[in-house]
Amino acid sequence: MKINEIAKLLGSKVEGDPDFEVKRVSEIKDNRIGDLVFLFNEKKVNEVEKLKDFAAVVPDSVRECSARSWIRVRDVKASMIKTLKYFYDNSVQIPESYLTTLENLSHVKMGNDVRIGKNVFIGENCILGNNVSIFPFSYIGNDVKIGNGSVIYPHAVILDRTKIGQEVIIYPGVVVGSEGFGYHRVKGEFKAIPHVGKVVIGNRVEIGALSMIDRGTIGDTIIGDGTKIDNSVHIAHNVKIGKNVIILAQVGIAGSCELGDDVVIAGQAGIADHVKIGKGATVAAKSGVSKDVEEKEVVFGYPADKRLNYIRKASYYKRLPELFKRVKALEQSK
Amino acid sequence: MKINEIAKLLGSKVEGDPDFEVKRVSEIKDNRIGDLVFLFNEKKVNEVEKLKDFAAVVPDSVRECSARSWIRVRDVKASMIKTLKYFYDNSVQIPESYLTTLENLSHVKMGNDVRIGKNVFIGENCILGNNVSIFPFSYIGNDVKIGNGSVIYPHAVILDRTKIGQEVIIYPGVVVGSEGFGYHRVKGEFKAIPHVGKVVIGNRVEIGALSMIDRGTIGDTIIGDGTKIDNSVHIAHNVKIGKNVIILAQVGIAGSCELGDDVVIAGQAGIADHVKIGKGATVAAKSGVSKDVEEKEVVFGYPADKRLNYIRKASYYKRLPELFKRVKALEQSK
Amino acid sequence: MKINEIAKLLGSKVEGDPDFEVKRVSEIKDNRIGDLVFLFNEKKVNEVEKLKDFAAVVPDSVRECSARSWIRVRDVKASMIKTLKYFYDNSVQIPESYLTTLENLSHVKMGNDVRIGKNVFIGENCILGNNVSIFPFSYIGNDVKIGNGSVIYPHAVILDRTKIGQEVIIYPGVVVGSEGFGYHRVKGEFKAIPHVGKVVIGNRVEIGALSMIDRGTIGDTIIGDGTKIDNSVHIAHNVKIGKNVIILAQVGIAGSCELGDDVVIAGQAGIADHVKIGKGATVAAKSGVSKDVEEKEVVFGYPADKRLNYIRKASYYKRLPELFKRVKALEQSK
Repeated sequence: MKINEIAKLLGSKVEGDPDFEVKRVSEIKDNRIGDLVFLFNEKKVNEVEKLKDFAAVVPDSVRECSARSWIRVRDVKASMIKTLKYFYDNSVQIPESYLTTLENLSHVKMGNDVRIGKNVFIGENCILGNNVSIFPFSYIGNDVKIGNGSVIYPHAVILDRTKIGQEVIIYPGVVVGSEGFGYHRVKGEFKAIPHVGKVVIGNRVEIGALSMIDRGTIGDTIIGDGTKIDNSVHIAHNVKIGKNVIILAQVGIAGSCELGDDVVIAGQAGIADHVKIGKGATVAAKSGVSKDVEEKEVVFGYPADKRLNYIRKASYYKRLPELFKRVKALEQSK
Repeated sequence: MKINEIAKLLGSKVEGDPDFEVKRVSEIKDNRIGDLVFLFNEKKVNEVEKLKDFAAVVPDSVRECSARSWIRVRDVKASMIKTLKYFYDNSVQIPESYLTTLENLSHVKMGNDVRIGKNVFIGENCILGNNVSIFPFSYIGNDVKIGNGSVIYPHAVILDRTKIGQEVIIYPGVVVGSEGFGYHRVKGEFKAIPHVGKVVIGNRVEIGALSMIDRGTIGDTIIGDGTKIDNSVHIAHNVKIGKNVIILAQVGIAGSCELGDDVVIAGQAGIADHVKIGKGATVAAKSGVSKDVEEKEVVFGYPADKRLNYIRKASYYKRLPELFKRVKALEQSK
Repeated sequence: MKINEIAKLLGSKVEGDPDFEVKRVSEIKDNRIGDLVFLFNEKKVNEVEKLKDFAAVVPDSVRECSARSWIRVRDVKASMIKTLKYFYDNSVQIPESYLTTLENLSHVKMGNDVRIGKNVFIGENCILGNNVSIFPFSYIGNDVKIGNGSVIYPHAVILDRTKIGQEVIIYPGVVVGSEGFGYHRVKGEFKAIPHVGKVVIGNRVEIGALSMIDRGTIGDTIIGDGTKIDNSVHIAHNVKIGKNVIILAQVGIAGSCELGDDVVIAGQAGIADHVKIGKGATVAAKSGVSKDVEEKEVVFGYPADKRLNYIRKASYYKRLPELFKRVKALEQSK
């Protein structure tokens, strides 16, 4: 493909050789002649010296670039997304031969252009919107609703009463709507508390492989629009999560927590039950949060503390050997 | 339903309006006219001011309550469990149309009233007790025994030789009896140690979604009666767990650990291999335990320490800035 | 079985009673008359006093042993592996009746002696080597290649374009090749970055139950030959892992990390994105690594630090109460 075509796709123009033939998109360290690379900032452009045999997409602010051909854009990452979508078919497809004939699912109320794999179980009173895709080996319980354009990958388990919005992606092995973990001890034995609530998932939510979202005790577990959840995340009963929240891999969120919009929870962090995390707050990786976090706060460590406190304490901690020496000197000088 | 009927169910009587109509059970913050709420302690009763349009179940000790109708009980949580079971059908059901005809499973020895979904695989020499339910897409290997009244949710994998007690619940995606992680390095390469043991699960055990219990090397991995395990818990080869143990989400228990009866391990904690945790001990969330823990001990942190030590150290840590100042003052006053 | 036969199997000879009948291999604490135990070091041999009713395999260096019969070997663990393989059939088998007839998979290019369970989905353009086994309920996408002698346990999900080497073992519920977690925020909304790369798994790799390996953005996620991965491990997009690496349960490795050969990552550790861990380095359990680790380094804690620093800091931390007392004494003596 001519570099010119890509420039047109990105709404920009080519600097340097306008006839350069792009063979593939690559990472900088793997590049070969004919490759196109995306350089996210000026520093990256300067680090890469021998660009002369390939093409680059760079930020607007770059004046000079050693690439044979280069394209300046306002947002390099957005341009990369556009180019990758144009160059590659990234979608994982249900093979045609594994699509079921919908006659087998005459008990399911469904919209147009629904694609369902063989060996998919769908219970009673379910409603599927238009363009829904469900891969083989997924289990959909009773009274489940799935909105337009949503995709359920293989081996997902969506239990009874779950409501899923539009354009949601459920990756492989996810479990939604399982019984919450709540017991009451009576004469030494644990009696399970029935979880009569459900899970409600908003629009454009994505849930990574092998994550799990338990249903509510009374009331529901709620995931807001646009929220993205990485792999192996545990979300307990009655948690309420806002819009456009990012939750990284292996995070655990205990029962009845509330996360505001735009919160970010980094990998392996844990949030104790009933904690409220304000809008726009960030929890650093591996932190353990047991108290409420204010809006826009950034917290670190275990027990989690505000960023500045954390850094201050850590620096004092580092200086402990020095302090021991100073005290010894004081003692000897007496 | 009349509030009177609920009072009868709970073995108590109504105070206030005896004809109040209960429409549903709700959480306090969601309540609407006609709702019934459960208030677990006096503090909660006092916090909630405007109870006048709904009904409440409260502890015995409460003398005054602003609810239109209220019921006093000895154990509010137990009463909530009773009421929820009475009001709601909480059970997740295998849809009738997805039950297999048992002729397909003529090779399996089974009791009465067994309910098995389509697309369930059961290997050779298996024995299922009365009232066992197995959901679609579960895989049961060879020589597996499942006791009366146990339920296996969709996508569980129960591998060869596993023994499961009575009234056990295995939630979706659980893996029981997989090979333990043990290798021996010979000339740079890792050789797998064969795990010829099995997993033995007691009565009334519950295992949360996507948890995994590996089989023993020589000898077995054992889970005691009444133990409840949350989601995504890893239990390694040869671990022995006592009775009525509680293990919260994302906990990892390494090989050959022993946990006494009534132990509690909070979320994301990790226990190193061969550690013994005494009866009734508690491990706090996110702790890392590498040494034995005595009976009834409560341990915190990483490396885990007794509660009092942990609190004392943490308070000294907090006071470090003050200590630095004091040392500086001493130096300047010389 | 006569102890003599086992001595022959291990290339050694019997000391003590040459006619001892071995009934089973056992753990020391479970032993009964007729059992054979493996004692890995001299300390273990001395700890066990009453060996007189059973047989033992012990290290070469042991001169005296109270067992009725005993065998001295150079490598006790290797001898145990040999003996267990000889005594027991450890393999988990696809029941014969659950093998599919390969006519159902005429679209798949495959070698000799391939064993595939019923209810296995295999997409288009896949290639399976000789002696490949795939258990029921596994989902293999399009364009997947699986090398000779590899085993895929039930409920594994191997998505499009994945390449798997020879003699690889994929345990139950593993997800390979799912979309990486990468988003770009445009006007408040998160846009997914297409992951057009794949996952490439070397020879003799083993991947524990419910672990997940995401595919690369551009470029691939790579797992080197001989690497062994425990349960519930998260490996993000574009991670490159060397040969003979050991990764224990519940570890998380963020995007674009590089691990050299012979690295060991202990349980529940987390590695931040783009971190490089040098050959032969070890990361202790529960550590959080955010900076590169040099070859053969051993790091502990969060943030992870070199072993000696970690121990030194921890010892100063322990002595804080003493330091407070000393400062108080100085203040009072002024």
